[in-house]
Amino acid sequence: MKFALLGIFAASSLALGIAVSHSAAEEAPENASPIYGVTIPEGYRDWKFIAPAQEAPPLDELRAVLGNDIAVDAYKKGILPFPDGSILVKLAYKRKQSTEFAPATVPGAPTTVQVMVKDSKKYPDSHGWGFGRFVDGKPVDVAQHQTCLSCHVGNVKDHDYVFTRYAP
Amino acid sequence: MKFALLGIFAASSLALGIAVSHSAAEEAPENASPIYGVTIPEGYRDWKFIAPAQEAPPLDELRAVLGNDIAVDAYKKGILPFPDGSILVKLAYKRKQSTEFAPATVPGAPTTVQVMVKDSKKYPDSHGWGFGRFVDGKPVDVAQHQTCLSCHVGNVKDHDYVFTRYAP
Repeated sequence: MKFALLGIFAASSLALGIAVSHSAAEEAPENASPIYGVTIPEGYRDWKFIAPAQEAPPLDELRAVLGNDIAVDAYKKGILPFPDGSILVKLAYKRKQSTEFAPATVPGAPTTVQVMVKDSKKYPDSHGWGFGRFVDGKPVDVAQHQTCLSCHVGNVKDHDYVFTRYAP
Repeated sequence: MKFALLGIFAASSLALGIAVSHSAAEEAPENASPIYGVTIPEGYRDWKFIAPAQEAPPLDELRAVLGNDIAVDAYKKGILPFPDGSILVKLAYKRKQSTEFAPATVPGAPTTVQVMVKDSKKYPDSHGWGFGRFVDGKPVDVAQHQTCLSCHVGNVKDHDYVFTRYAP
């Protein structure tokens, strides 16, 4: 019986691919976010561009959201909710006066990297989303992660709890 | 003799690749910029992200620069001047208050798409760069294109006439 169950698990692992790999990593997640166990995805900096944003003072940041292929495909086709496997990464930088062009502000020091991972099986209690907020590659504390879900659920209108829309 | 020359041209075309395609397109460039003959590159919206920026009022825009693989590779390796074949595309949007999150401003209507193409053989008189500024997919006029080079040459410091630096 034990072997039969293991066989089923192995087959499921193959079928679920990355999602199961993430689950396996939960056992000893290095630099994974509290509550959700989300890590900074490898290669995210080369992902496709969704949209820029600016955050007013006191944070005073320039931001950009990148997405993996599953997320970008969903954006382009208008698929909601986002399918499992979608990952969004928001890069944030202090807004800095350009020293070369007076009307422009440009990225200064990086501040946070924020990640949303869609996995409806792993995150049934947060509408399928797992969250991670990172400073210098390390996840911030539990208290900060407790604010993610309520803010997204309380503010985003009809966009699967994702603030960012695709910029044309 | 005619056939021999055609043969040489065909071989050169293969060797030079995209650069020659651009030259060939010059004969009847559709929606190409004045002065430089630069067009909006196909597929640019899926290119990799270089950096965001904000432009102060009166333009009051959020911007992002994307690059093709040659340009992104040069950025990552710190290669200057940018090699031939580098293409940078700046996307610009009116800055708009988010209706969902008070501290955020987000992309409104797209305004311009601006393109820089490095081709030292085609653009020997502009430090190897060709420029194109587009509104609704159409190039703006000669007068506007006459301002590109002088502004980049007059303001950019030691970065091959390219304002944008790679955001980490």
